[in-house]
Formats: sequence, C-alpha cells, structure tokens
Amino acid sequence: MKLGTIRTETGTAAALIDDGTVAELSYVDAGHALRAAPLGTLGQARTGIELGLDEVSFAPLVPNPSKIVCVGLNYRDHVEEMGREVPSAPTCFAKFSGALIGSSDDIEIPSPDVSAAVDWEVELTVVIGSSVRNASSTAALDAIAGYTVMNDISMRDWQRRSIQFLAGKTWEHCTPLGPWLVGTDELGDGSGLDVACEVNGVTKQSSNTDHLIFTAVDLVQDLSRVITLEPGDIIATGTPGGVGAGRDPQEFLKSGDVVTTTIEGIGSLVNTCRQQ
Amino acid sequence: MKLGTIRTETGTAAALIDDGTVAELSYVDAGHALRAAPLGTLGQARTGIELGLDEVSFAPLVPNPSKIVCVGLNYRDHVEEMGREVPSAPTCFAKFSGALIGSSDDIEIPSPDVSAAVDWEVELTVVIGSSVRNASSTAALDAIAGYTVMNDISMRDWQRRSIQFLAGKTWEHCTPLGPWLVGTDELGDGSGLDVACEVNGVTKQSSNTDHLIFTAVDLVQDLSRVITLEPGDIIATGTPGGVGAGRDPQEFLKSGDVVTTTIEGIGSLVNTCRQQ
Repeated sequence: MKLGTIRTETGTAAALIDDGTVAELSYVDAGHALRAAPLGTLGQARTGIELGLDEVSFAPLVPNPSKIVCVGLNYRDHVEEMGREVPSAPTCFAKFSGALIGSSDDIEIPSPDVSAAVDWEVELTVVIGSSVRNASSTAALDAIAGYTVMNDISMRDWQRRSIQFLAGKTWEHCTPLGPWLVGTDELGDGSGLDVACEVNGVTKQSSNTDHLIFTAVDLVQDLSRVITLEPGDIIATGTPGGVGAGRDPQEFLKSGDVVTTTIEGIGSLVNTCRQQ
Repeated sequence: MKLGTIRTETGTAAALIDDGTVAELSYVDAGHALRAAPLGTLGQARTGIELGLDEVSFAPLVPNPSKIVCVGLNYRDHVEEMGREVPSAPTCFAKFSGALIGSSDDIEIPSPDVSAAVDWEVELTVVIGSSVRNASSTAALDAIAGYTVMNDISMRDWQRRSIQFLAGKTWEHCTPLGPWLVGTDELGDGSGLDVACEVNGVTKQSSNTDHLIFTAVDLVQDLSRVITLEPGDIIATGTPGGVGAGRDPQEFLKSGDVVTTTIEGIGSLVNTCRQQ
C-alpha cells in the first residue's frame, strides 16, 4: 500500500499509488487521510479520479505534520565522520513544516554569502499512523503507518553556530519528503533497506537501515515516552556516513546540483538545487 | 490591547481582555485571530458575549502554532550557572504544541523514576503577528503582535541525555503559555520588563529583559533569515539565572508544587505540578 499527496488544480489531495496508477482520495493530503482512517481502509475513499504517475506532482508527503522529529548521529560511520561520540540515547531535534518540499521540487538554497555549507542526508523516515504514548515495542510497530524518504538538507554553518542544530536544519523549502509512504504490510519494521544519496549521478552515501543504532521501533517507543505521537507525525531516523561535511576535502551543494535520494522498497526523491 | 484564548462549552474562542472584562471574538483561538486580521482591528470581531476574568479558563494562548522556537543561554547569569559559553549566535531549539497548557492548568509531570529533574524557566515570549522573512530590525518589530509568558518546564535528565535538548523540552502538557498577549502598542520592543518565577511562593528567578543577550527583535530578525515566521508563531526568548539545576544543592519540582511565572506588564501563569 502506497499513500502520497498530489497537487491538484485547487490544492492537494491524498492518493493511493499502485502499479503506475495514482488514485485520488477524498482527503486533502496524506496527513488528513491517516488521521481519518487506517491506511488499509483508505481505498474506500477513492474519488474515481485516476492519473498516470508521470501526470502528477507530489507535494510534501505530509504538508503540515504536528511533529517532525529528526534523529542525529544514528549510524556509526556518520558519528565518526562528524567527530562525535556514539550516543547512549537518541539525539532528537525538530524541523518545521515550512522546510518541506515535494519529491521533485527545487531545493531553495540560500546564496553562498548566507550559507556556504549546504549538505545532503538521506534518511529512512517513519510516518505515524495512530496515536501512541508510552508504547511497548509491539505498540510502537503497530503505530507506524509506513516509511518514506527524507533528505535532511543541512546548512552546516548554521547548524554549528550554536550547540543546537535547529537553525541549520529547518531552512525554508529545502527538505524533500516523499514521494509516498509504503506501509508496514510491505516493509515491516523498516530494517534491511538500502539507503543511498547521489549528487549529479555520483553516489555519496550508500548504507542499509540494518546499521541504524536506534531502529525505527526504538525511536517511536522512545519519543512516545515524552509526548503522544499522532497520525501523520514524521520521524527521520538519521543519516549514514558520506555527507559533504565529513569528506576530505569537504563538498557542499551549489545551485544546479541534482540530488537523488533513494530508499529500497520505497522510491526516490530527485531535487535540483536553485539559489534564491 | 490584550488577546487570549478562552475555553468555551464547544471548544475555545479568541477573546479580548480589558479591565477585568473578557470579550469573546468570532475566531476559534488567538492564532486564528492573528492569521485573520491585525491585532488592532480584532475588536470588530466581538461576538457580544462578555465574561468576568474570574469566570474564564485560559487555554494555551496559541494552541497550535506552526512554530514554537525556544532560545537557550540568552542571559549571562543563566549561561554561567549551566556551565556553558556565552554564545555568539542564538541557541535555538523547538517545542511541539502538544507540550502546551493554559495559564492555570496543571503541569503533568512524570513520576520520579521517569524524570527526577523537572525544572522551571520563566521566559518573555514573542507572538508573531504578520508573516516575515529576511526582516530588517524595523520589519522584525513590525512583525511582532505582542508578548506573553511561558514557563519552559525542562526535564534536565532528558535534556542532557544527548547533545540536543528537544526530548527534555517538549514533555506533554508541561509548558504553560499565556494567559494572554499584550501588544507592542503597550510593550514596544519588550525591553525593560521584570521577569520572575516563584515556587510555592519563594522567588527562584528575578531578572529583567534588559539583560537578554539577543533581544526579541534580534531573534525575530535572525530566525526570519532561516524560515518565514507566520502569525501565531511563538519565540520564547530564554530564561535568566536561578533555575533548579543551577542551584547548590540542586532543586527540582515535585507533585503539588505551585509555580508562579510573572512578567511585568503582561501577567502571571499559576500552575500546580501533578504527577501522572
């Protein structure tokens, strides 16, 4: 089961994607759909409008989640390249929904005098399907609707200007999220999936979700101790080694670069950097 | 001009508060009111329902802001007590709206085996009134609707379990915000205001917003470089010295404690801690 949010003439609509066909649903986006009904029953909300995959533009999968949690330092090779310690608890920070873009939208990077350190981060991303607090591991898995792809584009200079990452992580219209979620019926607990990021066709990151320090289920369980997770909430599980800031010499994104972010069993984001 | 969000039989409503009288508005909350019209014109939306101050219960001032930004380490005495360096840029992190409570609601603290380090933080808090990006200092001040009071209740053990603060800062139903905002027509740029926090009637924090390292206007200007600030967005400007974690011996909140959080020219939050 694949659920996305497509752009329509009047705004957006949730849609089910199956074998190259996109079936519009009577919900304004995937977040509203998940809040209204379980993923497995959404087929009942088909409007009858069907389109080909090449006819649609995908909006951010959940345009206005109540929470976007990102997890840092969650693959050992990335912890090492960033010069950090392996954490004993998840390293959680937030992103605001104004940062999100669709799967083919431009990444609106700032001019080099504002940030000269725009970096890539492929991340397996959890989408919550039902409300959960103080979850057991079983309840945590049950609360996951499915998984999608995020590139947690990071302005390293802004991220490191203080001890808190937020300012470098929530740049407007820079974080692609999508193109759709794939349900736990297909992807289970999200383990064993290859993750990769290419820049202009050159592979920069290549790993597998088996290398996550804290798994998707661990993260849902952990965060649910702090606050109720709600349908449509987003948890980006962290990125493996190979980011630009960890290279020697360092490499960063510039206007015109094409970033392709792929997770096995889900799909790809393809986004071009455009200087504002 | 004072704008709040009151609880009604059917949910919530925005309201104007004047001289002990609360006049209901035809908006569902203060956030919706600010998104619909400038603060100075909201009187036109009176429903005709008027109540006494002692008859109403205040919900979180903006129940669902698109952003809650908190600023750490923004008074020198607090930087010192926390053993940190004086920052050269604002230390920004986020909080989710599920953390918010009203001005008289209970602070729903976890049991001591979950967190044994629940702490207080009085903060002058900016409420955005109009959309702004890449603001000059003049535009930043113009974008502020007014100021309110937050107590950024912090689970220090969860805050310090990793290098990112979020998990200790967004505990469900622990952050009082309100009772109302007071407009820039009365409070200008938010400088020169006494801020204080009492626990069970004993003063723990007492300072003045003149001691802010980054002022309200600085923070709006800075954050607007990263992302568009929208009406109803919340920026908590940081707390002065005197938190429990900075005391010798350290002191933390327990069930039954009453926390009174006051800012001159705005008002007070009075919240009782109740263990869940």
